[in-house]
Amino acid sequence: MYDLIAFDADDTLWENNLLYLQMEERVKSMLAAYPGAESFSPALAKTESRNLQYFGYGVMSFVLSMVESAVQVTGGRVSADDLNAIVQIGKEMISGEVKLYPGVESTLRALAARYRMILITKGDLLHQMSKVERSGLKSCFVDVHVVVEKDRETYASILAKHGVTPERFLMVGDSMRSDILPVLELGGSAVYVPNGDTWSHERREKPAGFDGCLHEVEQFSQLADLLG
Amino acid sequence: MYDLIAFDADDTLWENNLLYLQMEERVKSMLAAYPGAESFSPALAKTESRNLQYFGYGVMSFVLSMVESAVQVTGGRVSADDLNAIVQIGKEMISGEVKLYPGVESTLRALAARYRMILITKGDLLHQMSKVERSGLKSCFVDVHVVVEKDRETYASILAKHGVTPERFLMVGDSMRSDILPVLELGGSAVYVPNGDTWSHERREKPAGFDGCLHEVEQFSQLADLLG
Repeated sequence: MYDLIAFDADDTLWENNLLYLQMEERVKSMLAAYPGAESFSPALAKTESRNLQYFGYGVMSFVLSMVESAVQVTGGRVSADDLNAIVQIGKEMISGEVKLYPGVESTLRALAARYRMILITKGDLLHQMSKVERSGLKSCFVDVHVVVEKDRETYASILAKHGVTPERFLMVGDSMRSDILPVLELGGSAVYVPNGDTWSHERREKPAGFDGCLHEVEQFSQLADLLG
Repeated sequence: MYDLIAFDADDTLWENNLLYLQMEERVKSMLAAYPGAESFSPALAKTESRNLQYFGYGVMSFVLSMVESAVQVTGGRVSADDLNAIVQIGKEMISGEVKLYPGVESTLRALAARYRMILITKGDLLHQMSKVERSGLKSCFVDVHVVVEKDRETYASILAKHGVTPERFLMVGDSMRSDILPVLELGGSAVYVPNGDTWSHERREKPAGFDGCLHEVEQFSQLADLLG
């Protein structure tokens, strides 16, 4: 049925956005003593959007935007030591444990025996590769693609590399914006795995008119039935 | 003679380390008013080394290490606005002009007509891809690999992807550590293009015992003769 199945990683195979939210909360508490700190979260969201063009996705981009936003909302009154603490929080995030979702490992191992599978993820190259290594799942995938943006062009280029047509390609992920829509538009199939923790930047309405190409499972482990 | 020729990008095709040194000088001048600032450069070198395991190579890593070092050497007295200025300098670096070295464009275009060529580079994924796009050279390469580290394993995996044996592979670059040594050890060939601005982290002694596999050119354009 499919010659190639691709998986998103963050918030599909393992916890991710929750860690960003937790770190944001820690920084917010740290800044609580400064006047202006109450507007840290909205300021950060704007700074992150504005900085995407320079820093892309990932923890380093997030840390740099937190530093910038902390200086901004405190009117430059935040201490150097507090800003340095934000950088150190970034290191903690990068070296933190990779927490797989229930059923991910067994489902992937079963599918890997029958399908050619790859991983397609955004973020910092070193951090993403390190998480793949530490997840213990690397052997399930014939290739790992860390990409700048998951748009139609990116998917087309990956399919060309693997010599697969869109009709024989399936993408699995939690992001309507990055994992589902561009693949459907290209003529491929997709499985949407909704996640309550998905980053707001990645959320989009479920599109109409893709019957038969767009599937949805509540739990990752239900993939085994869908592809059985 | 060769089925695949790979090129390093930073400090081989275009200026790079010079920009890092210039940015370090700017930050040093900015910090000059603080006691302790005179030890900024040695502290930064140590911080960069220590942070490689978390942040890898690239401008974001450099900026985060500059922030950390500025806080450290000033004993936390550096102002939030000065630290924010370091982050803004990072954006300038990332969006700065890509300055090709003399002869690079014409040499690559001539070689691309006769060889299958790829680019292999370290650093931030988004920044490296953006520089390749803006260099105008992308069409010379059948593939661009942004990698975490340029070691033997990385080269072996890239060669496998392209279905090429080491004997039929040539790597061109300015870094003895990353472009030359691992390729020679793997049984491939290499052209060393020395550059006075190469980062100290990438410098190594020229190895003995690789006659016929290790070439050296003073100017990039001499590649045309070597491969003619």
